[in-house]
Amino acid sequence: MEDSGKESTKTAGKPIRCRAAIGREAGEPLVIEEVMVAPPEAHEVRIRILCTSLCHSDITFWKMKGPLGYFPRIFGHEAIGVVESIGENVDELTEGDMVIPSFMADCGECVDCKSKKSNLCSKLPFKVSPWMHRDETSRFTDLKGETIYHFLYVSSFSEYTVVDVAHLTKIDPAIPPNRACLLSCGVATGVGAAWRTADVEAGSTVAIFGLGAIGLAVAEGARLRGASRIIGVDVNPDKFEIGKTFGLTDFVNPASCKDKTLSEVINEMTGGGADYCFECVGLASLVHAAYACCRKGWGKTVVLGVDKPGAQLSLNSFEVLHSGKILTGSLFGGLKAKSDIPILVKRYMDKELQLDEFVTHEVSFEDINIAFDLLREGQSLRCVIWMNK
Amino acid sequence: MEDSGKESTKTAGKPIRCRAAIGREAGEPLVIEEVMVAPPEAHEVRIRILCTSLCHSDITFWKMKGPLGYFPRIFGHEAIGVVESIGENVDELTEGDMVIPSFMADCGECVDCKSKKSNLCSKLPFKVSPWMHRDETSRFTDLKGETIYHFLYVSSFSEYTVVDVAHLTKIDPAIPPNRACLLSCGVATGVGAAWRTADVEAGSTVAIFGLGAIGLAVAEGARLRGASRIIGVDVNPDKFEIGKTFGLTDFVNPASCKDKTLSEVINEMTGGGADYCFECVGLASLVHAAYACCRKGWGKTVVLGVDKPGAQLSLNSFEVLHSGKILTGSLFGGLKAKSDIPILVKRYMDKELQLDEFVTHEVSFEDINIAFDLLREGQSLRCVIWMNK
Ligand SMILES: [Zn+2]
Ligand SMILES: [Zn+2]
Ligand SMILES: [Zn+2]
Ligand SMILES: [Zn+2]
Repeated sequence: MEDSGKESTKTAGKPIRCRAAIGREAGEPLVIEEVMVAPPEAHEVRIRILCTSLCHSDITFWKMKGPLGYFPRIFGHEAIGVVESIGENVDELTEGDMVIPSFMADCGECVDCKSKKSNLCSKLPFKVSPWMHRDETSRFTDLKGETIYHFLYVSSFSEYTVVDVAHLTKIDPAIPPNRACLLSCGVATGVGAAWRTADVEAGSTVAIFGLGAIGLAVAEGARLRGASRIIGVDVNPDKFEIGKTFGLTDFVNPASCKDKTLSEVINEMTGGGADYCFECVGLASLVHAAYACCRKGWGKTVVLGVDKPGAQLSLNSFEVLHSGKILTGSLFGGLKAKSDIPILVKRYMDKELQLDEFVTHEVSFEDINIAFDLLREGQSLRCVIWMNK
Repeated sequence: MEDSGKESTKTAGKPIRCRAAIGREAGEPLVIEEVMVAPPEAHEVRIRILCTSLCHSDITFWKMKGPLGYFPRIFGHEAIGVVESIGENVDELTEGDMVIPSFMADCGECVDCKSKKSNLCSKLPFKVSPWMHRDETSRFTDLKGETIYHFLYVSSFSEYTVVDVAHLTKIDPAIPPNRACLLSCGVATGVGAAWRTADVEAGSTVAIFGLGAIGLAVAEGARLRGASRIIGVDVNPDKFEIGKTFGLTDFVNPASCKDKTLSEVINEMTGGGADYCFECVGLASLVHAAYACCRKGWGKTVVLGVDKPGAQLSLNSFEVLHSGKILTGSLFGGLKAKSDIPILVKRYMDKELQLDEFVTHEVSFEDINIAFDLLREGQSLRCVIWMNK
């Protein structure tokens, strides 16, 4: 019997002392400290993180001041880990299982989780919470005994973390960890938006507004669905080259549109608008542009970007009535974690889904702040942070 | 051979002098005068109107001043007629055919008409035009030779009118004219919105905002689709009784909501929101309420009401992203006239679709202004105007 199958022999039921990168103040470099990670409560699982990648939401909340800026906090939510021990009422996982955490719960029991139409678990609904999902307490303390907040129900910038079983998906351990972690949030969101939310049809045209990792992942999802034309829109012309890897066929720089509006340009390119438009930046005004770029009669605009709280989308009432266009939004790309992540893992292993090209940088845990710098400066798509390398 | 099969023996190719109700000034009673109706040009058909019913759009444009208020004009667009004569290049219709005109073209040739996803013909796109669709001229003159404008490509307040063949659907002549005319616009729009646009599922919950003829027709469509709960919202409590005929199970008067908002009331009634919400009034603010009343995860809001030009719909960006809700609009209920109207005719003849209950009044052509009064005062759902009775 392998040792890795018995991770918990010595530690199960006891607190684990390990290293974590703690955000102590908004916008200040993370500090690697030792922390205490409590054992999992009922419906919870303690996992050892193998690697984690940095997502824009980590930066958004790390910079956040005011009532939603919780500190000290352990950020990180794109990760892969191995089950160290399980709490009561956990039947589907056991020590040594390879798992992907996700910020969206998939309880499997509520009307939403049972429905094919929704991925928004209503038993454990997504909230921007600093706690474990069920009992709203923390499993982390620092060595002075002070509580440390959780992040998006994952907190993967720690060698060990505790995650609710509804937020964990068991996967085939054959997939390399530095690829698997991408399926924990951003890349899965983009691919899922093309696949599950928009249900892109073969031969269709797609326009993607914003070519960060999520926008490129939408392109990858659209490519897999057989879209015949995938138009990328970004102010950085360098994005076209990397975009071609993911099936981008055309590129529009809004800054170069001159005497035409962006929607005029895309309407001309597509002979009346793209079948699917994806807003991946998080600007209400860009949602409006995306809506204007989609095909009258059936065009679908999917909102993926996160705008500032309170931002309002404005659409012309007459256009909504007369265009037959569809507007929708998508959290986690409409994916149901427990059933859809394993499909994405398999498609990667079958060399259909491209993940390697998203990983532009890899650093050791000690250099986690470098990962922050790279993403903030727009130099990385995804930087993988290895916990023990 | 019946006489009615040879309508055109004496008139084909020549102008017809007949009676029409002319709107000479915005908001002034229509005047019944004799007019000249030119023969149909290529792709056109001249029809004898049997009866016509009054729709809110007739009133909206009859009251309209400013650049979109065209006078003198022959209003009317909900009707049924018999083909009197055909122009060149008309293959699908012949003299004596019973036809329903519609403001939406169905050319059968363009990418939209060939697609299952759209009913917005792109060859003859809907515009608020005062002319025939293809050559933008009029077929009507008064006895002084002055041009009279068309309305919504139909102009049915005339004993004879000329309609583009793309705007005509041949139907089974067994259906009574005063039922068939309802399928020309309003009732078809409401039934279609539940059937084609929203694709209401059996067992689902529906909320309808505004219980005029279109809102009640949405209820009828939802009833036919097997919705288990159909909630009507209207400030007039009398609407509940008539609504029950069309399957309404619940009624909410927004004026009686007291310390709760309308969306709180409907969210409570439905345990989290209706599966489908239909806005049938034409108020951007009510679209917002409908969106708030629909179920997180999959709820669909369909906009059917016409707001003032330039009205803006405002939605919270975060809600669009996090709710997974769908917003769309529908012209003519997403129906494709030539294939869907005959299905509705058959369902009426099979005693499935209820139409009789929509006709609250019937008047002779001479009394057409009474039909206007009844609808403006909210006394009628549909008033049928008989041309020769
Ligand atoms: Zn659930
Ligand atoms: Zn993320
Ligand atoms: Zn067409
Ligand atoms: Zn109408």
